Amino acid sequence: MREALKQARIAYQEDEVPVGAVIVWQDRILSRACNYTEKLKDATAHAEMQAITAASQGLGGKYLNDCTLYVTLEPCPMCAGALYWAQIGRIVYGASDPKRGYMRIGPALLHPKTQVTEGVLAEECAALLKKFFQEKRK
Amino acid sequence: MREALKQARIAYQEDEVPVGAVIVWQDRILSRACNYTEKLKDATAHAEMQAITAASQGLGGKYLNDCTLYVTLEPCPMCAGALYWAQIGRIVYGASDPKRGYMRIGPALLHPKTQVTEGVLAEECAALLKKFFQEKRK
Repeated sequence: MREALKQARIAYQEDEVPVGAVIVWQDRILSRACNYTEKLKDATAHAEMQAITAASQGLGGKYLNDCTLYVTLEPCPMCAGALYWAQIGRIVYGASDPKRGYMRIGPALLHPKTQVTEGVLAEECAALLKKFFQEKRK
Repeated sequence: MREALKQARIAYQEDEVPVGAVIVWQDRILSRACNYTEKLKDATAHAEMQAITAASQGLGGKYLNDCTLYVTLEPCPMCAGALYWAQIGRIVYGASDPKRGYMRIGPALLHPKTQVTEGVLAEECAALLKKFFQEKRK
């Protein structure tokens, strides 16, 4: 999650909503990504989506069953849907997102085999987001 | 929808699940795409996702409020989530997808302002999918 936070800080510096993601396979980082929806002018360019695409390229296949995604914010329904298709083995997320997170819709968005751990470094992940949105409101 | 069907046929020829999508803005086709999850080895490479990314590049912004997506199959939750973020104006789809379509989860996946029309050329869209899966089972 420390690596995912580093990615979130990159997003913050680029004036993007600061979310970072890392995908790990056998103790190896397959992909690192941060939210780039503004820079790429693409609503689909969430950190998780880019991390999934890059990890799939690294593994040479579209399934990520043996991989863990570390992401600083609870994934949204789009990302949860992508993680469903990729059949990700495990998701570890930091801050919760009661407004836009996938749990607003429900756990059925994820693949039934995917394990989920929430709240890892949650305060640190949430603090960066809070700082970003407070500055935006100034 | 005829253009989206052309895209679906390209996917079929490439041995991909035959789904095609087109995004239109002011009577102009902004993007055409077909499902390439196998070719790109990327679970996120649905026709709709690629069409959204390409249309956003064409318009120079991540919102597609004034655009219509034509897609041969009911979007899945991932694509519905992406269409939410893009705030697409209208979705027109062909065949329904009771197993993997977004309506299995519910209409809350879409942006409240998005209009939806279903069943356009549904039989033709569904026939291509049926043919593909029948051949796969042989």
